[in-house]
Parts: sequence; C-alpha cells; structure tokens
Amino acid sequence: MKIICSRNSLLKSLNISMRAVPSHTTMDILECILIDASSNILKFITNDMDLGIETIVEGHIEEKGIAAIDAKIFYEIIRKLPDNDVRIVVDENFNTTITCEKARFQISARSGEDFSYLPIVDRDRCITISQFTLKELIRQTIFSISAGDSNPLMTGELFEIRSNILRVVSLDGHRISMRIIHLEKDYENEKVIIPGKSLVEMSKILSGEIDETVTLYFSDNHVLFELENTMVVSRLIEGEYFRIDQMISNEYDTKITVNKKDFMDCIDRSSLLVRESEKKPLIMRVSDDQMDLLMDSSMGRMNEEIDIVKEGKDILIGFNPRYFNDALRVINDEEITVFMVNPKAPCFIKDEKGSYFYLILPVNINQNQYA
Amino acid sequence: MKIICSRNSLLKSLNISMRAVPSHTTMDILECILIDASSNILKFITNDMDLGIETIVEGHIEEKGIAAIDAKIFYEIIRKLPDNDVRIVVDENFNTTITCEKARFQISARSGEDFSYLPIVDRDRCITISQFTLKELIRQTIFSISAGDSNPLMTGELFEIRSNILRVVSLDGHRISMRIIHLEKDYENEKVIIPGKSLVEMSKILSGEIDETVTLYFSDNHVLFELENTMVVSRLIEGEYFRIDQMISNEYDTKITVNKKDFMDCIDRSSLLVRESEKKPLIMRVSDDQMDLLMDSSMGRMNEEIDIVKEGKDILIGFNPRYFNDALRVINDEEITVFMVNPKAPCFIKDEKGSYFYLILPVNINQNQYA
Repeated sequence: MKIICSRNSLLKSLNISMRAVPSHTTMDILECILIDASSNILKFITNDMDLGIETIVEGHIEEKGIAAIDAKIFYEIIRKLPDNDVRIVVDENFNTTITCEKARFQISARSGEDFSYLPIVDRDRCITISQFTLKELIRQTIFSISAGDSNPLMTGELFEIRSNILRVVSLDGHRISMRIIHLEKDYENEKVIIPGKSLVEMSKILSGEIDETVTLYFSDNHVLFELENTMVVSRLIEGEYFRIDQMISNEYDTKITVNKKDFMDCIDRSSLLVRESEKKPLIMRVSDDQMDLLMDSSMGRMNEEIDIVKEGKDILIGFNPRYFNDALRVINDEEITVFMVNPKAPCFIKDEKGSYFYLILPVNINQNQYA
Repeated sequence: MKIICSRNSLLKSLNISMRAVPSHTTMDILECILIDASSNILKFITNDMDLGIETIVEGHIEEKGIAAIDAKIFYEIIRKLPDNDVRIVVDENFNTTITCEKARFQISARSGEDFSYLPIVDRDRCITISQFTLKELIRQTIFSISAGDSNPLMTGELFEIRSNILRVVSLDGHRISMRIIHLEKDYENEKVIIPGKSLVEMSKILSGEIDETVTLYFSDNHVLFELENTMVVSRLIEGEYFRIDQMISNEYDTKITVNKKDFMDCIDRSSLLVRESEKKPLIMRVSDDQMDLLMDSSMGRMNEEIDIVKEGKDILIGFNPRYFNDALRVINDEEITVFMVNPKAPCFIKDEKGSYFYLILPVNINQNQYA
C-alpha cells in the first residue's frame, strides 16, 4: 500500500477516527486504525465494538492495500509532523514507513485480517436533522444519565419519534431531562435507547453548524449516524425504556418565575459550603415575591434572597443544588419557571412552548428546622 | 473586626496569599489566612513554614481586629461573590459574617493566637532587579532541580552574587542549568540556596513587568522578596552548594550551530516513540554540515537529518531527548551552539556573550550499533 495525503487532511480524519479507539482494552486489534485503500476511496475505520467509525480521507492512493496501525502512535506521529505531504508505505511484511520532509518513521503494522468492520445498518428507517440540533439535544440531556451500571437503561438516552416529533430523554433515578423538537416532516414511529458514551463521542464529531445535516438510520440493534464523509454506528441498549409519561404531571400548587443567572449564581455560591461527601440540601423558602435560599453545612451557613414572581402556595423545599444547576446550565432562556407541588413531590422546570422539561426530586428536610 | 473591601481587591490579594497555603498539612492553623486589621493598614498573612507572605489589601477598616479564617473556604467565597463591596465582620466569638449584595455567608474564624508570623529579615544585604528578570531567571533554570529528596541541595537553586554579577544555578545530577546577568551596580558577595518550591510560587507572584522591581534581602537563614505591596519570605537550604566552576570546561572537539526550532521539532518527534519507562537515547550522528538524529525503540524507528554548521571532529553521541528539549525551550536565540568533547563527556550549550550555560550528560551507547 502506498498513499500520499497532506498532514492536515490526515489529522482532520484522525480527529474523527480516534473517537472510537478505546483507551484500555484486552483486544489489541481494537487499538488499531484500519487504513483501507483497497478501492479508489481512502478510508479510516475504527471500532471499539460499542461504536464504529468509517471516515473518508482526502488523499491519493498510489498502490492499493489495507493495513491496521496502532492508532495512538499513528495519531501522535501525524500530529508532530510539519504541515506538508505525508507518504505512507506499507510493504508485504507490513513494515510501515511514514515520511514527511526529512523526517522518517518506521513502525510495524498488521494485516487487519482480524479487524471488526462496521455492522451493516439498513437505510430504510431514518430521520434527518441539523448537526447543530443533534449536538444541542445531546448537551441538554446527557448530564442526567447514570454513570453506574446498576440499570443499563439509565446509561443511555431514549430517542423517540412520533410522526413529526423527536423526544430525547435521560434519567438517573433522581431527575429526568427531556428535550422535544419538531421535525420538518412526518416519520415512522421509532423508540431506541442509545448509549450515553456513544452520544458523548458523537457530539464531539458533530460540527455544530445549522446548515450541515446528519441522518440517523435505525435498525433493531444499531443506529447509524451519517455525515458528509463519515459514518458512525453505535449499538443500541436493549430493553423497554421507563414509562416517562406516567412520571410527568402538569399539576402544581406553586409556580415561580425567576431570573436564571441570579438563581444559578446563588446556587453556585451555596455549593461552596458543601463537601462532596456531605450531600447537604439547598433549602428554598418560597414566599410572596421572594425566595430565600439557605445552605447549612459543617463549614458554615449561607443565605440569600432572590426576587421571584410567585403564583400559588408558599413552600419550604430542599434540593441537591447540583441537580438544579445541571438543568439551568443548559436552558437558554433568561427567565425560567419552576413548578412545585409539595416538599416531597418532584418539581419541574419547563417552558411554555414545550421544548424542554426537567424534573428533579426534592430531598427530605425537617420542615420545623427551617420554619 | 469590621472591614469593607471591593470583591476584586480581595481577590487580587488572595491570589497572592494563597501561594503560601499548603494543600495538605497536619497543622490546621497553616490552612488559615490571617486577616490583620490591627493597625491602619489591612494585611493578609499566610505561612506554610517554608514560605511566608504578607500583602497589603486595599480596603477600609471600620473596627480594628485580627482573625484567622480557613483560606480555601474564604478564597472560594470571595471568588463566587458578585463584583461589589464585601463586608467582613468578625464578632468576639470569632463568628464571621461575609456579606455582598444579598448574599450572606456565616463561617467560624479563629483568634489567630497560634499563627506563625513571618520571620524578621534584616534589610542590610540586598539586590534589586526587575520582576521580569527574576521571573525569567527562575523559568530558565527551574526545570533542572531535582524533585526527589535524595540530596536537599539539588531541590534548590544557587543564587550567587559577585560584585555586579548574579548567577543562578540548578542541577540534578544529569545536567546543570546556569543563567548569568549583570546587575546595575556592585553588591557584596552572596551565596544562598533558595528552595525550588519557593521560587515556583514566587514566579507566580511576580508581575513579569520590566519596569516593576523586586528587592531580595538576604539573611543567614532566609531570603525576603519585597514587592510594592507584598513581602515574601522563604527559608534557605543549608549547606555548601556544589563547586560548579570545577564542573564547567570551555574545551571542545566538536562545535555545532543549528536552528533551534528545527532541532526542537525533531527531538519532539523522536520522543513519540519513547515510553516513559524505556529511557531510550536520542542518537546524534554529527558529520560535515549535517546531523542525523535517530531513535530506535520497541515501538519503531525514527530518523531525520538537520542542517548544521560544524567545526571540529565528527561524533556519534546519545542523549535523553527530554534534557535537550528542556534547555532549548528556555533559550530565546534562534540559533544555538552545542559543544561536545567525546561520547562520554558532558556537552554544553552556551552563547557567546555568556548569559547562559546548559550542561547535559550523554547516555552511554554502543558505538558499533550506529556506526
């Protein structure tokens, strides 16, 4: 195999391919990048068995062939080369020579015979959205997946399509994050659970441009994300997702509207006094036109008043401040509205047009202590 | 005690004071910052027993007093406050209230009776240089102190004054770094060893401005750095420093001049193939007008030619590439000159005007293998 590519086009493709190279694995071949120059199109393929990426590389094939190279070393070499043409030659014994200007690297490659190619996903069930939208949907929900493996369903996100509505949901047992967007046309109903890890990597590959699109193809076990020169395939999580609609209610006894930045700054300050191990709740004391925020820990005490607009009953309720901040951070509105029922029932943050819904469970507090 | 300061002036002073707060200690009081409002000047004092800092804080004292507050919590609180006036009130039981706009923190302070004030350093033996110069001197030598405690002398830097010359030296057994500057006037001879850790912290406090000065006062056990509003006192390392002049020679058999950036890029690339544990040498094969750099490791092989100007004999010599890069990184010249004697003798990099001198010991290599 003989190929010539500019250092920058190699690096551009590698930045995508590296997303599916595991940092630790017992299978050597997964740490490799497959350079596929067997046709007229040069491709890099990586696959960590959860996520597989195939991306087209700009360059010139002088002699066809296939080789698997240790991805990390290859990436480091390309990264450190000057910005000029790079020539990669692999001989019949898979000795690989990489030259650029006066620098010459010799490393060994492998045949790639044992490499796992991407699973085939039929291209019949799909939706197309902008890369910006998908990147935002992931960012605005990914924080409330569960890291632990106690329940595999919680480590992924529900992507649910009902005619022209896409709903993305994540939950970890303490909170639910939901984002809803309208699609440009009607699609068939779909319901898949995509691993959170795949979505994190995918969001790093997405350009974030509104005028670039991504198409998602669904099969029973996989989802394929198709970009202009790149295909990303992720396995799906098996099982029936939680019945979200049963957990969501629109009833409330207290409704408060508050400036998001003031609220966040205050939560931020209250968190100073909480050590990770302590799990002290942030107390919210809601009365007419004013919310008193209170934090009491072994380190000290903080309180602060915030102006609000209130409808309904007064309430004294406690929350894990981090859960509130996680949700507020990804809401783009200047003012947010929080709906509460009682000190033991979940509260929810949602907008009028129904584009987001964040549910947070309160922490049990001694009502008398703060009355 | 009652004081009022702007949040930004508190933060500015804290950023200096925090440099002498240890991250781990068994003595609680060292984790505190002493707020000294006992006179008309408001001061913050911190002291980790190696390094002590006293800095003047801009602000208004309403009621005099002294209190010691947990430095980390205090710093975090101030950092998260809005940019406005901050009022700090400590009552007779050392309950401390910090208020800013509507935010109110209550934490406990201590009397500070057991606080260690800064040692007194007589102001008779001193030199004055620009903050920029001191910052540069530290940056250009600090990398070759020894981290280990095998020999305490190696964990510090020699500051040696001989009439109008200041020489700063560090060494770790594999290399020596030396910087020489001319002072504006003649001073008495001094020879002190300042702990590397103190210099690292000091260089973060220095502004890096040419027109701001720092005065160093020397006593038998301490050095005092005096800036406009800040005093930093460091203990000195006891003992007789190594006899540097005996280690330095000006004789050579090979002299090469090379473009610094080309040389560094090439060393950088060769280091890719070296795992931390392997310690593979970088081979330099010097012949007329050309130097061949070669790296051979379990991961692969790299070689590259660089143009040089050579005087004297050909040579084949091996080095730890990191030691070379560390020195080249802090030399501001575009071209550098390396002097070599033989494959087992130290090489040195120095400039004509004698402002720097870097000595590096070679690694033993099998001459036949690379001949």
